[in-house]
Amino acid sequence: TVAAHQRLHISSGPIEPDGGKLVELVVDQSKKGEKLLEAAALRRVKLTKIDLQESEFLQILHFNSLRLGDGLVVNMSVPIVLAIDDSQKNRIGQSRKVVLVDSGDHPVAILSEFSALNSQLESETKLNNGLWNWLIGGDLEVIEPVKYHDGLDRFRLSPAELRKELERRNADAVFTFQLRNPVHNGHALLMTDTRRRLLEMGYKNPILLLHPLGGYTKADDVPLDWRMRQHEKVLEDGVLDPETTIVFIFPSPMHYAGPTEVQWHAKARINAGANFYIVGRDPTGMGHPIEKRDLYDADHGKKVLSMAPGLERLNILPFKVAAYDKTQGKMAFFDPSRPQDFLFISGTKMRTLAKNKENPPEGFMCPGGWKVLVDYYDSLAPTENGKVPLAVPA
Amino acid sequence: TVAAHQRLHISSGPIEPDGGKLVELVVDQSKKGEKLLEAAALRRVKLTKIDLQESEFLQILHFNSLRLGDGLVVNMSVPIVLAIDDSQKNRIGQSRKVVLVDSGDHPVAILSEFSALNSQLESETKLNNGLWNWLIGGDLEVIEPVKYHDGLDRFRLSPAELRKELERRNADAVFTFQLRNPVHNGHALLMTDTRRRLLEMGYKNPILLLHPLGGYTKADDVPLDWRMRQHEKVLEDGVLDPETTIVFIFPSPMHYAGPTEVQWHAKARINAGANFYIVGRDPTGMGHPIEKRDLYDADHGKKVLSMAPGLERLNILPFKVAAYDKTQGKMAFFDPSRPQDFLFISGTKMRTLAKNKENPPEGFMCPGGWKVLVDYYDSLAPTENGKVPLAVPA
Repeated sequence: TVAAHQRLHISSGPIEPDGGKLVELVVDQSKKGEKLLEAAALRRVKLTKIDLQESEFLQILHFNSLRLGDGLVVNMSVPIVLAIDDSQKNRIGQSRKVVLVDSGDHPVAILSEFSALNSQLESETKLNNGLWNWLIGGDLEVIEPVKYHDGLDRFRLSPAELRKELERRNADAVFTFQLRNPVHNGHALLMTDTRRRLLEMGYKNPILLLHPLGGYTKADDVPLDWRMRQHEKVLEDGVLDPETTIVFIFPSPMHYAGPTEVQWHAKARINAGANFYIVGRDPTGMGHPIEKRDLYDADHGKKVLSMAPGLERLNILPFKVAAYDKTQGKMAFFDPSRPQDFLFISGTKMRTLAKNKENPPEGFMCPGGWKVLVDYYDSLAPTENGKVPLAVPA
Repeated sequence: TVAAHQRLHISSGPIEPDGGKLVELVVDQSKKGEKLLEAAALRRVKLTKIDLQESEFLQILHFNSLRLGDGLVVNMSVPIVLAIDDSQKNRIGQSRKVVLVDSGDHPVAILSEFSALNSQLESETKLNNGLWNWLIGGDLEVIEPVKYHDGLDRFRLSPAELRKELERRNADAVFTFQLRNPVHNGHALLMTDTRRRLLEMGYKNPILLLHPLGGYTKADDVPLDWRMRQHEKVLEDGVLDPETTIVFIFPSPMHYAGPTEVQWHAKARINAGANFYIVGRDPTGMGHPIEKRDLYDADHGKKVLSMAPGLERLNILPFKVAAYDKTQGKMAFFDPSRPQDFLFISGTKMRTLAKNKENPPEGFMCPGGWKVLVDYYDSLAPTENGKVPLAVPA
């Protein structure tokens, strides 16, 4: 049970950020003019993706964690580096600072104290960069937070902004749910049940941070804008309580890197203010590219989370399996004593039903949310016979 | 300088083994009969190679370290698992203990509390097992230490035996040199210089543990028996002082796994009693299988060692580069102010000279040691024109 979880720490204040203080990358408004002036004189690196020094890079690759100056260990499993090609590397030359510019050539951030690593020289690198022979990383001063101009920028808060929002809501516990799929009633059951348990434990106002991943995902995943519409409907329809749920975008790209990436997903949520993290089966996993099986052991994600250095303060809540209970006509926690009563509806099955405008069993998802999915597939060019074939499992 | 090294700890006693106490795998002589009887009743697994439980396995893969029950972190970068195939896995069935037997079916050890991991289900595994679909590991009770019957078994001591030998020698500092190549005068200079510096630091009796790797190596590396003869000559010729040097075999196989494996090399030497570890350029590295470059960045091994969790107590001594000084006619530390005076003789160049019965510059290696190398290549079948082509770089 949650209450019996060994690593549970009950506290009334917000969770401490990693390393004891939140690093604010965005420069103070009063310094913005000065930084823009500085940026104008720097070599430019165009941003297409996002960026470490070598020691940090090696610690991340080998130990999935960083030892800070004071000996404190923080979790870090994915290096934040910018991959650049030879011509960009040559243009930087011996500069100690560069300005990162967006596609319209507007300065976004100043990157300093950086080093360039030859991505070809470290065969243990987790990134396959193709022609991007160099990885650069270092200290960032953000002049202008990245805007996507897709109507969703209001859902993209910095960790400090998220913490302010949680404070405004008087949250005394924050539990977060990482997702990259539409929310069905099984997810909702799990989140509602988690809140009930937190209340039982003595928390007065647990807030759910529903935190959909906003970076790139596989081609057969539902795109972010449609997922946000679906999440909105789930709150409108009352499947999740809008009074105790906040929805914001986690702007990270999906690497499908299994137990390595799940640590990043959890660590980032500490800084966003969460002290409880719900983890499911095969988090950040995907199907094997050739064989008919998962790429990672489905249990390794939650196991690695429970033993990861630097994540000791985060309470990991393993996912309870929910499935469609045919006797109740709704999603319920799976009861292993009567397996024949339950129907498992996979993401693949769900997508196929929506593509073919078929309805799932009643009670699987709220009608408003389901309609968003059907509308999404409807917006795509139809296939020849009007039916979409079963996609590869995800 | 060594004296200024941040992590230097001067102590007079032997270095504490990992986790505070040395685990003796070999059962007490008085228990041997009983264990043999137990072994006779167990399912057999034939040893061709050597084995962990899942939690430990995942910690090793992701964090290169293990957290012990008391919170202490020890370094462990290579999982000690035995790869078995489906038929062996089926034969074991649900048994909780198995006996590991040698090629002559003699019981070597009892393996208990083990778990079998599907090596196919963890794509992050560092081992490529081919048909060996399962990895087993757990607690070992060694009934009979492995013998190779190659005339070199007296050089294969357990960590406890090595510590006894160091105690018998009254060592107050132990520095170790991992090697898989013949010793030339550049290596000897480095080791002699290290001893001089340890004396300067106040140690009275620093002992060098010359610890050649005894497991499998690349086909173009010089085999163990010839290397041991060469090392013997180096001591006989007085290039290394037999009074302050001990030579034993480190029975690990070579994985050429770069920064990952170098941690294992260092960690194992803590348990062997060493408190100083000499690390060179590109340790446990190898050439890229296709491209003309090293597989790992040559500096990453020593960098990763210096930051590895669990290795804080080991004093890492970075290798000073020695080369043939043409003005002195001997191996000397490279002086960057007069690079034109130095000749770098790579391992590849050394092997090619020996193969072709050519002599290296005088002072590169003691004559007795060189003759062993020439004799080794002489013992191989000659090539057509009597000359051996330059091998791939190593």
